[in-house]
Amino acid sequence: MRNMLIAQSGGPTAAINASLSGAIQEAIRNPEIGQVYGALNGIQGMLAGTLVDLRAQFFRQEDFTILECTPAMALGSCRYRLPQEEEDPSVYEKIDQLFAQYEIGYFFYIGGNDSMDTVDKLSCHFARTGQDVKIIGIPKTIDNDLPGTDHSPGFGSSAKFIATAMLEIIRDCYVYDTDSVTIVEIMGRHAGWLTASAALPRTVGARAPQLIYLPEVAFDPEQFIRDVKEVQSLTRNCIVAVSEGVRLADGSFAAENFQSGVVDAFGHRYLSGVGKYLETLVREKIGCKVRSIELNVLQRCSSHLMSATDVREARKIGSYAVRFALQGHTGEMMVLERVSNRPYMVRIGAKPVSEIANREQLVPRAWINKQGNDVTDEMFDYLLPLIEGEVPYPTQNGMPVHFVLDKTVVK
Amino acid sequence: MRNMLIAQSGGPTAAINASLSGAIQEAIRNPEIGQVYGALNGIQGMLAGTLVDLRAQFFRQEDFTILECTPAMALGSCRYRLPQEEEDPSVYEKIDQLFAQYEIGYFFYIGGNDSMDTVDKLSCHFARTGQDVKIIGIPKTIDNDLPGTDHSPGFGSSAKFIATAMLEIIRDCYVYDTDSVTIVEIMGRHAGWLTASAALPRTVGARAPQLIYLPEVAFDPEQFIRDVKEVQSLTRNCIVAVSEGVRLADGSFAAENFQSGVVDAFGHRYLSGVGKYLETLVREKIGCKVRSIELNVLQRCSSHLMSATDVREARKIGSYAVRFALQGHTGEMMVLERVSNRPYMVRIGAKPVSEIANREQLVPRAWINKQGNDVTDEMFDYLLPLIEGEVPYPTQNGMPVHFVLDKTVVK
Repeated sequence: MRNMLIAQSGGPTAAINASLSGAIQEAIRNPEIGQVYGALNGIQGMLAGTLVDLRAQFFRQEDFTILECTPAMALGSCRYRLPQEEEDPSVYEKIDQLFAQYEIGYFFYIGGNDSMDTVDKLSCHFARTGQDVKIIGIPKTIDNDLPGTDHSPGFGSSAKFIATAMLEIIRDCYVYDTDSVTIVEIMGRHAGWLTASAALPRTVGARAPQLIYLPEVAFDPEQFIRDVKEVQSLTRNCIVAVSEGVRLADGSFAAENFQSGVVDAFGHRYLSGVGKYLETLVREKIGCKVRSIELNVLQRCSSHLMSATDVREARKIGSYAVRFALQGHTGEMMVLERVSNRPYMVRIGAKPVSEIANREQLVPRAWINKQGNDVTDEMFDYLLPLIEGEVPYPTQNGMPVHFVLDKTVVK
Repeated sequence: MRNMLIAQSGGPTAAINASLSGAIQEAIRNPEIGQVYGALNGIQGMLAGTLVDLRAQFFRQEDFTILECTPAMALGSCRYRLPQEEEDPSVYEKIDQLFAQYEIGYFFYIGGNDSMDTVDKLSCHFARTGQDVKIIGIPKTIDNDLPGTDHSPGFGSSAKFIATAMLEIIRDCYVYDTDSVTIVEIMGRHAGWLTASAALPRTVGARAPQLIYLPEVAFDPEQFIRDVKEVQSLTRNCIVAVSEGVRLADGSFAAENFQSGVVDAFGHRYLSGVGKYLETLVREKIGCKVRSIELNVLQRCSSHLMSATDVREARKIGSYAVRFALQGHTGEMMVLERVSNRPYMVRIGAKPVSEIANREQLVPRAWINKQGNDVTDEMFDYLLPLIEGEVPYPTQNGMPVHFVLDKTVVK
């Protein structure tokens, strides 16, 4: 009997704890698995040896329900990039020691692109050294940019929050009888999936947003002003959804001058400010009432408004990861394959993580209109099932009840 | 039999349509009331003669439920300040004509401080001219700054959104094992009620926000940096709630240089930027990871997360306004008097609008701690009942269903 280790990494999503819940529940159901350890703060906790006993933290089924409704990451996260083995073998030695000490036979890493790079490197390392550790990546990302899977857990809940917030903002915009432009800035460094979700209110009768700009198409500020003017020739309230990551034709970020220039451990620039930039542009070039709204971190942590479809899939994919590892799969990432849209059906599978790591799934150009300022019907068909269903959550004092992990480290 | 006219004014709140719903339902129940008219875009619509027939728009009880779950304002709004009669008698003549033409005997204006000024002026006008029009103000404001009432409809839902969003942001902040400062900028030009609501997560076990700055106390940037450093000496994640309206000891807005300088029709400055200002300050003076989050218009339009207490009171106060007018009250604003906290009970009454208009109810200094960086227990006792209860809402395509008014104008 071997033990299991699980960790979370990268940016939070509302559904990432549902995958953790699914994996723990499946592990507890399977007598082949001994201890169920969680590493605090991802790979960092593995290097520091800070593991917690997860089995001891769940007494009732309700505890899992609360965990699934808790945003951010119960185990904490990190943004640590595992070096190549030849660069720093000591890191791999530490991990080998930890796995030997705790008799880890199964390792699950819940994360996005960068985390799958870690899974890939560790998987190659174990293959080379002949250690019998099954290692599986469990996808999560609000950006929906992981390749090899129809979509990633976490995306649906963010898309639902964005669609709902956008619908409410639209109602707010139509209150005054004056010309106005409202710019909503949405997360998404390279992939426009989240920004595309802002179009969903149009499926329930809203007449906005009229303009949608994704990072997949080069952004032209002059064309943007022409687009806004054209909308204004038809209606008083122009509402724009724009991705934080839109770039000019030369590849530079549209809001270059508005950015802080800070770079994270993976070399990604922290973005902000395209909303403010476009707001300034409209004020200067058109001169009407204009405001910009940044949906900010609520896009990834609004667990009071999760998609039931997303939470169900996140839980299931976590549970299947454990089953797949027990069946002998390793070096793979769990994936969702869409079987049909009506009724919506998906199949859960797994693909070699080497095919996935360090690649990005962008919005196909064919799903963006010719002018590059809207999405096509294919996008609506793709998105709608993913935001379907509401998730009731327990409350106390009028606020959601969250799961807080006991971080007592095992000796 | 006389007809009734109702209108909405000022900034949107999530609960303002619940007051409209309560008033329409009460009017329909009372045979003394003939037609039920709504004016589009507040007093502007009255001057333009754009009235809609409200009775014709509601066929089923469910229509009222949907209206109550719809953010913004079904009738639209305006920010028009009624002149003094001696300044521009023609405006009053137009209103007299409209009231005579449509045989209006009852007029209800749902709004905040500025709207109560309109109610007061019209009430004096009708008293002077001897017209038999009963006129009642129905309070609404997310800022909770209307005097004479324990609290105002609309505030509880905003407070619930802020408390919930803050709790989720706190979870998000604790994900990484690094020192960080998070600044959440909250609405409130002069009154700190909304910002105080950000403290509520501490009643459900959260250890943040540790610092709360309201506009009622002079803001000292140097003390702020000392406060942050003190929190950081105890914990890694410092979370700050700050009102958009905090001012320095000299009375100027703390973020003066970050503001657009645009002024609305009432001479209020549009505020923004105190979060960004404090973010910059922390980056310069402390140098740790820091971010700022502006909750923006979601604070006033998040009808997917309304307080059941707030919606019930908003509906009831709308309904009582009609009853009070039928009993002969006029020139009054409806108010809520708190009878007890445990159990929470309120009494609905009315007070002369002349005592209310153009005054502000600020947070008592005694409900803010001595250092001016937190709220006291009295504030928690006051706030907690107001965010109690969830409001289920109908959905379509995974998004809330909203009520959209037929704006066909009556001839």
